[in-house]
Amino acid sequence: MFQIKAKDGKGRVGVLKTKHGDVKTPALMPVIHPRKQALDVAKYGAEIVITNAYLIYKDNKLKQKAIDEGLHKLINFNGPIMTDSGSFQLSVYGDVEITNKEVIEFQELIKTDIGTSLDIPTAPFVEREKAEKDLEITLQRAREAVNYKKEQNMEMLLNSVVQGSTFLDLRRECAKELSSLDADLYPIGAVVPLMESYHYKDLVDVVMNTMKELSDTRPRHLMGAGHPMIFALCVAMGCDLFDSAAYILYAEDDRLLSTRGTFKLENLQEMPCSCEICTKYTPDDLRAMPKEKRRDLIAQHNLHVSFAELRLIRQAIYDGNLMELVEERCRAHPALLEAQRQLANYTMDLEKYEPRSKKSAFFYTGAESLSRCEIQRHMQKLREMPKKTNLIILPPTRKPYSKFTSGKLGEFYTYGSNNEINIEDSDFMVLDIPFGLIPLEIDEVYPLSQNDAPKTYDVDSIEFLEDYLYEFSEYYDEILIHSRIVKKLELENCNKYDFEIRYKKDDVKKIKAIADYQFGNGAGEALFTGNINIEKSKKTGKIRHVYDGKTLIVNMRASDSYLILSKEGAKRLHKAFNYPKNRVVVNEDSEPFALDGKSVFCKFVVECDENIRSNDEVLIVNKQDKLLAYGKSLLGACEIKQFNTGQAIKTRKGMKK
Amino acid sequence: MFQIKAKDGKGRVGVLKTKHGDVKTPALMPVIHPRKQALDVAKYGAEIVITNAYLIYKDNKLKQKAIDEGLHKLINFNGPIMTDSGSFQLSVYGDVEITNKEVIEFQELIKTDIGTSLDIPTAPFVEREKAEKDLEITLQRAREAVNYKKEQNMEMLLNSVVQGSTFLDLRRECAKELSSLDADLYPIGAVVPLMESYHYKDLVDVVMNTMKELSDTRPRHLMGAGHPMIFALCVAMGCDLFDSAAYILYAEDDRLLSTRGTFKLENLQEMPCSCEICTKYTPDDLRAMPKEKRRDLIAQHNLHVSFAELRLIRQAIYDGNLMELVEERCRAHPALLEAQRQLANYTMDLEKYEPRSKKSAFFYTGAESLSRCEIQRHMQKLREMPKKTNLIILPPTRKPYSKFTSGKLGEFYTYGSNNEINIEDSDFMVLDIPFGLIPLEIDEVYPLSQNDAPKTYDVDSIEFLEDYLYEFSEYYDEILIHSRIVKKLELENCNKYDFEIRYKKDDVKKIKAIADYQFGNGAGEALFTGNINIEKSKKTGKIRHVYDGKTLIVNMRASDSYLILSKEGAKRLHKAFNYPKNRVVVNEDSEPFALDGKSVFCKFVVECDENIRSNDEVLIVNKQDKLLAYGKSLLGACEIKQFNTGQAIKTRKGMKK
Repeated sequence: MFQIKAKDGKGRVGVLKTKHGDVKTPALMPVIHPRKQALDVAKYGAEIVITNAYLIYKDNKLKQKAIDEGLHKLINFNGPIMTDSGSFQLSVYGDVEITNKEVIEFQELIKTDIGTSLDIPTAPFVEREKAEKDLEITLQRAREAVNYKKEQNMEMLLNSVVQGSTFLDLRRECAKELSSLDADLYPIGAVVPLMESYHYKDLVDVVMNTMKELSDTRPRHLMGAGHPMIFALCVAMGCDLFDSAAYILYAEDDRLLSTRGTFKLENLQEMPCSCEICTKYTPDDLRAMPKEKRRDLIAQHNLHVSFAELRLIRQAIYDGNLMELVEERCRAHPALLEAQRQLANYTMDLEKYEPRSKKSAFFYTGAESLSRCEIQRHMQKLREMPKKTNLIILPPTRKPYSKFTSGKLGEFYTYGSNNEINIEDSDFMVLDIPFGLIPLEIDEVYPLSQNDAPKTYDVDSIEFLEDYLYEFSEYYDEILIHSRIVKKLELENCNKYDFEIRYKKDDVKKIKAIADYQFGNGAGEALFTGNINIEKSKKTGKIRHVYDGKTLIVNMRASDSYLILSKEGAKRLHKAFNYPKNRVVVNEDSEPFALDGKSVFCKFVVECDENIRSNDEVLIVNKQDKLLAYGKSLLGACEIKQFNTGQAIKTRKGMKK
Repeated sequence: MFQIKAKDGKGRVGVLKTKHGDVKTPALMPVIHPRKQALDVAKYGAEIVITNAYLIYKDNKLKQKAIDEGLHKLINFNGPIMTDSGSFQLSVYGDVEITNKEVIEFQELIKTDIGTSLDIPTAPFVEREKAEKDLEITLQRAREAVNYKKEQNMEMLLNSVVQGSTFLDLRRECAKELSSLDADLYPIGAVVPLMESYHYKDLVDVVMNTMKELSDTRPRHLMGAGHPMIFALCVAMGCDLFDSAAYILYAEDDRLLSTRGTFKLENLQEMPCSCEICTKYTPDDLRAMPKEKRRDLIAQHNLHVSFAELRLIRQAIYDGNLMELVEERCRAHPALLEAQRQLANYTMDLEKYEPRSKKSAFFYTGAESLSRCEIQRHMQKLREMPKKTNLIILPPTRKPYSKFTSGKLGEFYTYGSNNEINIEDSDFMVLDIPFGLIPLEIDEVYPLSQNDAPKTYDVDSIEFLEDYLYEFSEYYDEILIHSRIVKKLELENCNKYDFEIRYKKDDVKKIKAIADYQFGNGAGEALFTGNINIEKSKKTGKIRHVYDGKTLIVNMRASDSYLILSKEGAKRLHKAFNYPKNRVVVNEDSEPFALDGKSVFCKFVVECDENIRSNDEVLIVNKQDKLLAYGKSLLGACEIKQFNTGQAIKTRKGMKK
């Protein structure tokens, strides 16, 4: 019903399968009024539309036609159609002339592709008591709808709408309840007032709390969201579907949508985008037109802009730079920037979904980038790494730092005493924005070299580096800091260090450090024993293969310097760590397939190391921890646990062969 | 030849007039190869193109055709054409087979609209000696060209190219020299290597230093700049023309331009914009096409994107939010963000061009916004304002703060002693991002209420506020700080203040404070004497008119709360300040026109207060400081001094009437 094709953090490109065809998500569903269809929205990129079953139900003529000829004929659209149930009318008029069961039945009868139960949309910032009471009804009706659909063996897909007003625990509770019902799609309801009043910060709280408990296996629909300005942010929070009448309502009011906000035609002297309408007409042309023609052209522009933004978002997901797009879009309005800053409170929720390695570089776009989960993840990994007695901190060079670090390293300062320290017993790290401290041995591992930031620091950057330094100085006996850093950060209480510092590159140290960083402490020692033999690329000088004698242990991937296990490497890693670390555990039935090197599907996974992230190298074992195979995880641990379809691990090799 | 229609900071919308028609600037001139024209670029928005006169000159067939039929026929373009002189070829091959005079003569002969002298493009980061030597020749040839054009009474407009490599003093020297020659257009040359290597920070230095000395009356052309990613930044620095072969060169290489960077077709799964090409075709469609067809379609996309960006930039100038667009665009790449941070070093250069009041609000888009000139300007004004003995600092409310500040103001803390202070002898100010301290009396003056920023502070914001507080605490005996600020900024050494604080609104204080802020210290006392009578809007409660008895002194503009002088107000202001403060001085010839209330043209202005900015209310006087009229300045002082055409002051009234 819903397949995920590509992911970046919580954002995903998916395919929603319906009776009337497939929909590529993230998607926008233009709202079609059942009585009048101003535009053939399919022509401008719509693959799915939404209309209101209750409005049809209430109008005898429409109702009869829908029953006789079907919904698709009624609104003249051959692709997938979602219908709403009258909840909105309920929230506005306080009552509707239909029951939950009736509206479900009616939606199936008129052959909608996706129907909706009659939930109670509870406005933001209401009294808690009201929100709780409403929620009880919403949940009861959702249960009723799911059961009724099963009972009647209905064909249509079913929406169960998440409510709970701005009470975050209620949103979580509702999402959890509904996820257990296993409906087909999960709309997030009653957020329009938040968007209309630019309360994007609260929108982030509502959506992120909902997402904490909402199944990852189903599409999520942010109801009433139709302004392209917020699409990227909402996709990054995990939303797959948007709907809106904005394209036509704004057009009727002579307003043009854009990712930077809304333009009033009366203020325009230039057309603001590259679409057909903006290139063919001038604002004066539009102003001189009859109202209806103008409205249609502006609506076309609005659709062009919206669908272009969704294409760009999908491309950003494929490219792995969705967050960069979000950070750019959130500069369009201070309320969006506030929302982005709020998103920093959910960094560890996002981290679970963040691939370990991506093809695009990490771009720092401003102080807010320092809250991104890649940075938190690195810091956490670094805390856990084995440490020498002393720390020597170097200023950034070109990247990879280790390639451009050699010879005498210049002047250093020390905190406190000025005794000669044991260089052999020292970690060498570069201090840089945005990743803080980067050990020279692992500096080529993604994203520690695959990133870019301005060399001019803002105050946030300086404080970030100071805090980093402060924390890590606690872990070492003696710290030496390069004079350039002392100067740039204006560090006080430093004394000049009188002895020369040199960094000695050591390939064995390097591969061991990478192994520890990648698989956990001790992995390096366990993997690289015996007669270590390192083969490098003749062209780039980079490590490519590591052998024990003639037995391959790992390959090193050139693009991100992660280690790819060989059969021997897998065995050694398996021995080095206890169940379930670095492991995906499959059930008995799938054992022979795994042994044969077949890929592992989610539904056969019974347990896995919760630290697994997509693109990690993992071991595949059975419940008795027998090593069956090894491969690359396509999903994060939390996703593997949830999904019942699709591949979890792309197996590199089974242990049978 | 060049008229400015709208301005925002140093960015301007202009019209460049040529024999072959008008060009709206900022404009992009697609490079047309004299031998092959792949696309009819006019169809995609080009109003002017650029081609290479030297390549035509060197090819006998082309040369003869150009002489016989004219350049426009040769490249099949009926609009304005600019020609380059072979300088580029000179820089690549070290020599060209043409002299400066010959190439000037040839360009006039083939009827180019804008010709170029044979300057020496000096690459960035060369030895100083080379840059100096090259510059000498460039300047000598520019002089020769200007003289030759005059001598021969040539019709074509003439480019004089600014060189000087990355030596900023040489760029300034060159710009100053060339400005004195009074050529028609000023290209800034040899910056392509900076752009190709993402040295945007150095580009900012080169362009801003050039701009320091370059005439504002002429269009400036950033030579070889053709990537839409940098258009907004460059327009904000004062560039009017761009040119580039990028649209076609990138297309030949299957690369698609966008304001976010460049997309390689091979990596695309979605088309990235709203243009006709992106809506009609998929990346797969393009990949399946014959090379030439694909190239033409991608080139069309590239042109659509580029011209759309220029339209959006022009609209931003009309709207007065160009800097917000720049700040958004500069998030596309860390090197652009670095450039934007570098631009902060030129804030006071930009301030001279920044209108005092605009129709759009100031949006804070990140830490970099705190360097914007509006903020520096306010801080400077505030330093100069008359001060009471004590300062009481309030947390932000909704805006305008003064409207939402009343009754008991809550808990306060004091630095040091805890004696009761004299509230009457205290200034009340709100502390907020992005404008720091805002006296309650002037809080409705643009942009102190007309701005928006996140309520969640980053470290830069906190340090900004702390610094502000620290500086202004020096100017007062006692400071009281509201508990919410003490908490938010984690201020130490504060003692609870035991007495109640109330703020008493006082309209007379308010208008006097605004007058002081607007016109300078003492303006309030001078303007508002006698029987002060304040008339407010019945609808909004805002002050609209201020009288002395029945004589109108000022009106207050509702949108920005600036004071608009009446005849009596002008007289009082004139008496209060010495020549040339708040004054524009016109020559003898224009005296009768000014007295009659006719608007003042730049060429009649002999002197003016250097603190005048566009949209300021100013006095119009003669050299003997006789008050002739008063009105609104349309330009900043530095522009009034430079321009010889166009209006400087929109006169409200002459003193004769």
